[in-house]
Amino acid sequence: MRVLGIDPGTAILGWGVVEIQGVQATALDYGAVQTAKSLAAADRLAVIYSALQEIVARWQPEAAAVEKLYFGQNTRTALDVGQARGVALLVLAQNHLPMVELTPAEVKQAITGYGRADKSQMQRMVQRLLGLEAIPKPDDAADALAIALSGHDRHRMRDRWAP
Amino acid sequence: MRVLGIDPGTAILGWGVVEIQGVQATALDYGAVQTAKSLAAADRLAVIYSALQEIVARWQPEAAAVEKLYFGQNTRTALDVGQARGVALLVLAQNHLPMVELTPAEVKQAITGYGRADKSQMQRMVQRLLGLEAIPKPDDAADALAIALSGHDRHRMRDRWAP
Repeated sequence: MRVLGIDPGTAILGWGVVEIQGVQATALDYGAVQTAKSLAAADRLAVIYSALQEIVARWQPEAAAVEKLYFGQNTRTALDVGQARGVALLVLAQNHLPMVELTPAEVKQAITGYGRADKSQMQRMVQRLLGLEAIPKPDDAADALAIALSGHDRHRMRDRWAP
Repeated sequence: MRVLGIDPGTAILGWGVVEIQGVQATALDYGAVQTAKSLAAADRLAVIYSALQEIVARWQPEAAAVEKLYFGQNTRTALDVGQARGVALLVLAQNHLPMVELTPAEVKQAITGYGRADKSQMQRMVQRLLGLEAIPKPDDAADALAIALSGHDRHRMRDRWAP
């Protein structure tokens, strides 16, 4: 199964495409969509939309996984990230991609077996699971790959248990 | 000048198109995009995207105005509204519509001359300014018309003072 993982944000949106066959997982491609602060918010969203549409068209994932975020008290950040996340979900819906949402703790649990793993533990595990020579950069792309890997488990379970 | 006003939300997104010529303001069309709770979040955003694209194509506004929201402590609502707002901003950017953002207090100030006007004062004033026989329904559409009217002032000032 080929899964697109997305770590949403306005300034930088991480993405990664993984292919999983049995116990083998491969990173097909990954990166981060960065938008200039000098652009208007609406134009930044348009850049994200085009980039994600292009990634989906190029890699043809069968499913997607998106980080589900909590923000404590920071409603300003929640609104901004929500806007980028909305555009990402739109692209998934327009391409009829089934989608799962995972909290950061769920991703950590799935990847390292420990819901409070730190960033470097996570990144080393992503590197190992995908057989990469180095830790994927930037951090947002590594996070997106982790989300894709954990999303795969969730999709597989859903397929297995679906009526 | 023809202005599209948007009051963003996931469950219900109000919109209104006003045409302003000198001191005359007319409501060309208005309404609310409602999405079923039974739909997945991503599919609700896809409905909003298509509806807004269709409204822009039909009415060809020259400018847009979107409510700028604050949420106190409610980050869950901020994220959800952010997602719908992101899709709305995307549609505006894709159609190259210049956009202004106004807080609820700015809209109230522009429409009634009083930043703390209540909902019924606002709605009666929108009705009067647009020469409508009744208060526009639903409330979200009335809000969107108020946003469009106040957005017009802001766009006009920007045009006047632009270098």
